[in-house]
Amino acid sequence: MKKHISFEAIMNMEKQERVHFANSLSGFKSVCLIGTQNKLNQTNLAIIDSLVHIGSNPPLFGMLFRPGVVERHTLENILETGFYTINHINENIYKQAHQTSARYDREISEFDVTGLNPEYKSSFFAPFVSESHVQLAMKFKEKIDITINNTVLIIGEVKDVYFPENCFREDGFLDLEKAQTITCSGLDSYHKTVQLDRLSYAKPNKTITSLL
Amino acid sequence: MKKHISFEAIMNMEKQERVHFANSLSGFKSVCLIGTQNKLNQTNLAIIDSLVHIGSNPPLFGMLFRPGVVERHTLENILETGFYTINHINENIYKQAHQTSARYDREISEFDVTGLNPEYKSSFFAPFVSESHVQLAMKFKEKIDITINNTVLIIGEVKDVYFPENCFREDGFLDLEKAQTITCSGLDSYHKTVQLDRLSYAKPNKTITSLL
Repeated sequence: MKKHISFEAIMNMEKQERVHFANSLSGFKSVCLIGTQNKLNQTNLAIIDSLVHIGSNPPLFGMLFRPGVVERHTLENILETGFYTINHINENIYKQAHQTSARYDREISEFDVTGLNPEYKSSFFAPFVSESHVQLAMKFKEKIDITINNTVLIIGEVKDVYFPENCFREDGFLDLEKAQTITCSGLDSYHKTVQLDRLSYAKPNKTITSLL
Repeated sequence: MKKHISFEAIMNMEKQERVHFANSLSGFKSVCLIGTQNKLNQTNLAIIDSLVHIGSNPPLFGMLFRPGVVERHTLENILETGFYTINHINENIYKQAHQTSARYDREISEFDVTGLNPEYKSSFFAPFVSESHVQLAMKFKEKIDITINNTVLIIGEVKDVYFPENCFREDGFLDLEKAQTITCSGLDSYHKTVQLDRLSYAKPNKTITSLL
């Protein structure tokens, strides 16, 4: 027998309880660090758990911003400069990554306060996180306003990808577990993963097999 | 030393390799089954890995559809009826969940071919997956066209949530690991999780502590 919580019960929750609950409902999430800098080269780093795959040809990813909250400096830098990095989080840096969600003033860089190191390469404008094992250079493509609750979907295109060589499989799959990428749930829970299987392409009337 | 793959190299990949690679880049993802039926009560079930949290007040979630692919029956049913369910996937049902991605004809229900059982409750129109431990009843709110690559973002509001009572924490957090919810990476890799920690709300000049 399951517990049932209705829309009305959710709306009657105390604000922080509702935020924890609603953030838990979408399952395990991608959690990354977004690296940016403004035109004065003031760097910024923000943890984001709303990354979503939009397309493969070309490779496009979206992420959601709630204006007025802590990630606003990241959003401003992306719109001002057109570039950002996506850096996967691993077990060694998740506490520092979480600390970037604190409300620092504009002139404070989360790189400085967390001790994570900015890394510049291939003359890409925005800083990568040196300690991250999977790093993406992103070019801003489109901003979509989600008027229903005043959020903003930022879509970017992948310009470069950096990752440990031994994580690449010949069919194009990247072994994120081997790269030590972690996942999150709710607002503040971090998890490593244990692979169950890779499954073959599903077709009607054909039994799925393991790809491992 | 990391391996570097450029935008040009991604675009030069063979199609299936690019799809595997691009789908890997966003990290571990939420993976759920979307239950729908049309006005003639023909049921449909589709696996989705693009769920994204849009807001908490009210609780809103989005998911991305690529028109013309296998999830099109799900999209049609949502637009026709206004209702759908989101069902978390656990270790016991992930192979059946994966099988729903095969291209079945319109008149075939993925419930029938996978053996997963539709469950109706509280007079909600769309079918839940009986074997799922965390189930959400969703009402369609808005369709946003993403013109850059002809995809569609469907936003819905949570009307009811069902989950195992022992997974609910008093601060509103839902322990998805205890609910046996799994995650996925790439197109076809499924993973269970091992919690590292829950971390306290981050503030400047304050050390993060464990909530466990």
